Amino acid sequence: MAADSSQKWILMTTAQTPTNIAVIKYWGKRDEALILAVNDSISVTLDPQHLCTTTTVAVSPMFQSDRMWLNGKEISLSGGRYQNCLREIRSRASKIEDEKKGIKITKKDWEKLHVHIASYNNFPTAAGLASSAAGFACLVFSLAKLMNVQEDQGKLSAIARQGSGSACRSLYGGFVKWVMGNEENGSDSIAVQLQDEKHWDELVIIIAVVSSRQKETSSTSGMRDSVETSLLLQHRAKEVVPKRIIEMEEAIKNRDFPSFARLTCADSNQFHAVCLDTSPPIFYMNDTSHRIISCVEKWNRSEGTPQVAYTFDAGPNAVLIARDRKVAANLLQRLLYYFPPHSDTDLNSYVIGDKSILGDVGVEEMKDVEALPPPPETKDQIPAQKQRGAVSYFICTRPGKGPVLLSDESQALLNPESGLPK
Amino acid sequence: MAADSSQKWILMTTAQTPTNIAVIKYWGKRDEALILAVNDSISVTLDPQHLCTTTTVAVSPMFQSDRMWLNGKEISLSGGRYQNCLREIRSRASKIEDEKKGIKITKKDWEKLHVHIASYNNFPTAAGLASSAAGFACLVFSLAKLMNVQEDQGKLSAIARQGSGSACRSLYGGFVKWVMGNEENGSDSIAVQLQDEKHWDELVIIIAVVSSRQKETSSTSGMRDSVETSLLLQHRAKEVVPKRIIEMEEAIKNRDFPSFARLTCADSNQFHAVCLDTSPPIFYMNDTSHRIISCVEKWNRSEGTPQVAYTFDAGPNAVLIARDRKVAANLLQRLLYYFPPHSDTDLNSYVIGDKSILGDVGVEEMKDVEALPPPPETKDQIPAQKQRGAVSYFICTRPGKGPVLLSDESQALLNPESGLPK
Repeated sequence: MAADSSQKWILMTTAQTPTNIAVIKYWGKRDEALILAVNDSISVTLDPQHLCTTTTVAVSPMFQSDRMWLNGKEISLSGGRYQNCLREIRSRASKIEDEKKGIKITKKDWEKLHVHIASYNNFPTAAGLASSAAGFACLVFSLAKLMNVQEDQGKLSAIARQGSGSACRSLYGGFVKWVMGNEENGSDSIAVQLQDEKHWDELVIIIAVVSSRQKETSSTSGMRDSVETSLLLQHRAKEVVPKRIIEMEEAIKNRDFPSFARLTCADSNQFHAVCLDTSPPIFYMNDTSHRIISCVEKWNRSEGTPQVAYTFDAGPNAVLIARDRKVAANLLQRLLYYFPPHSDTDLNSYVIGDKSILGDVGVEEMKDVEALPPPPETKDQIPAQKQRGAVSYFICTRPGKGPVLLSDESQALLNPESGLPK
Repeated sequence: MAADSSQKWILMTTAQTPTNIAVIKYWGKRDEALILAVNDSISVTLDPQHLCTTTTVAVSPMFQSDRMWLNGKEISLSGGRYQNCLREIRSRASKIEDEKKGIKITKKDWEKLHVHIASYNNFPTAAGLASSAAGFACLVFSLAKLMNVQEDQGKLSAIARQGSGSACRSLYGGFVKWVMGNEENGSDSIAVQLQDEKHWDELVIIIAVVSSRQKETSSTSGMRDSVETSLLLQHRAKEVVPKRIIEMEEAIKNRDFPSFARLTCADSNQFHAVCLDTSPPIFYMNDTSHRIISCVEKWNRSEGTPQVAYTFDAGPNAVLIARDRKVAANLLQRLLYYFPPHSDTDLNSYVIGDKSILGDVGVEEMKDVEALPPPPETKDQIPAQKQRGAVSYFICTRPGKGPVLLSDESQALLNPESGLPK
């Protein structure tokens, strides 16, 4: 039988899962252990080509314990969140039989078999780009495939939710709603896809990774403090968000960019307002974040109708959503004008992701950045001050697809012979 | 009769009025023209020795029109707010008879007599230190004395309120409540003194005037935008503030510093949260403001009970209220450690107001500032980064008295012969 360590086989699955950015924010849990939110939230899934987690999970009678490596470094799996995900998936595992390889795993075997997990982010983990959302989504998705779990994507999302709340939204592409649910056990607190990634494919997303000297409050402890001390949070959760969720679903369905932008910006600002109303107050945005907002607000006003939406998570990075590619080029031009890199920076590492937008801006090398003209909406004002080095780099991307299996074994992160990281 | 321009007399009054800082904030009008607030507010009057407006008002049959000079520069009186104050005071003027000087002014004469007004702030006007509050309070107070208005201080506060909302609170010393009132005409929207300045005289106030590159949103347009767009403002005004007002009155009455500090900080943060929840969002605090808050919060936490309260108005300046003089010295030491001046700064212009606190800190010259040890609460952490030049200067002051008449004619700002600025 499978749990006999004399058997040498290793069964492996590799998957890729996107990260996501909330446009109606999740902030506050009603149940800390199960990770149940105080309100619904809606997110856009980001193209995994530019921001994703790849995870290989393997099982073998040879493995002595559950182990995990993140970006090549072994990390502990003893945390409750990992344990919750592993337990929930294991309890739903089904039998597997592969006569050719001589593998036979019964439902009971799964309780004793150990797993090896290797996970890798194709973006800097420390940059505050919701790596835990993609990470837990990928862990749950790949384990479910490995263990032949027969649950639908919604059920899997409820398991990923127990790793990291926003992870449930990374189980779908396009536009995703996390329904907070009513059940005490969290069974109806799941993600559902509102629209797939092809529904509104004009949108272009530029992320400004903002330099910061401040150590940030983790979102887990931050939202706990907000729930306990903010007198505005419950009003937001009960009175404001439910209406916004309805309006946002409509805006997405109708590809109504002005409404989408208005709701996205207002909800980001209100989330940060609740952080500020927390005791002690939480500051995720800094002066650079504020300047990016001011720049977008001024431009949107000068155009008469919103061209760009902004949203900020638990950190200073700006996620900017442009209504189309032409607007995105204009946006990148403004961003490079206001936030040029330090002189020793390589343009190739300053604008990453879909670099083709740089061509639309007419920027090929650093001297082109320096030669950019001031945006017309600043014309009759004191020349806008440039903030050199305030942004670390920009990532150009778009809404993207949900989790996928990578069948090509060369993309696996674990060695098929040893079950250890390649 | 008085309105006969052949008469050469000039009748003059000079008064001094303090500024004030709200500890429960006023943000939002229910009536723009009358300046009626959406909630009660409570303030501390600041010692006029360090922050005040001096105003001389004069009347003479020789004056051809109402004129005003602010800090030596003539300004227009055509604005509605000035006109409201002038009209309200004039309509309440009483007759004056001074046989010795040959002055006789009937109630009717006041309608035709023109006034000259000269006003001077003993602090930088551009520093965002509520100069309009002291200014309108002083204008109304001095005009009322000049015109022999027989109304009590509460009625005068309702007139000052029509110049600048927070001005009504500058008509008293100590701790002052602006009662929002219910009447449509604003007659019951007045300031009342909760406690005089002697009631809690241990408190010491240090103001950090924070350097800023940003042009700030005026509080008038900012609060209009908040009323129109913030979904949190009404909840704050109706549900949160009324309870806080009761708690704050109790805290002040009982000289309960922990409650006073908790309420002051929470209300400042909530006011800025509402600003952030406004569309477009308003940012009054900057990274330096945030760092000052973090420094105070960390210290308060390390002491187990609050030592210092912070509050920020419509700008980045921090108003820090220390529970006593010993704490104030410890606070100033921390502030000078974290925010040393540029090397070419004169200590004498970097710490102004009640400089005697510098002696308690053991700082006599700039090299003493550089030699300050890091605060103990940062000991087991990465050495805190110093932010040289982030603060322009500090003002050391305390709670202070209300408006006073200056009878010494040498302190008048208008020439007694010409009625023009000295």
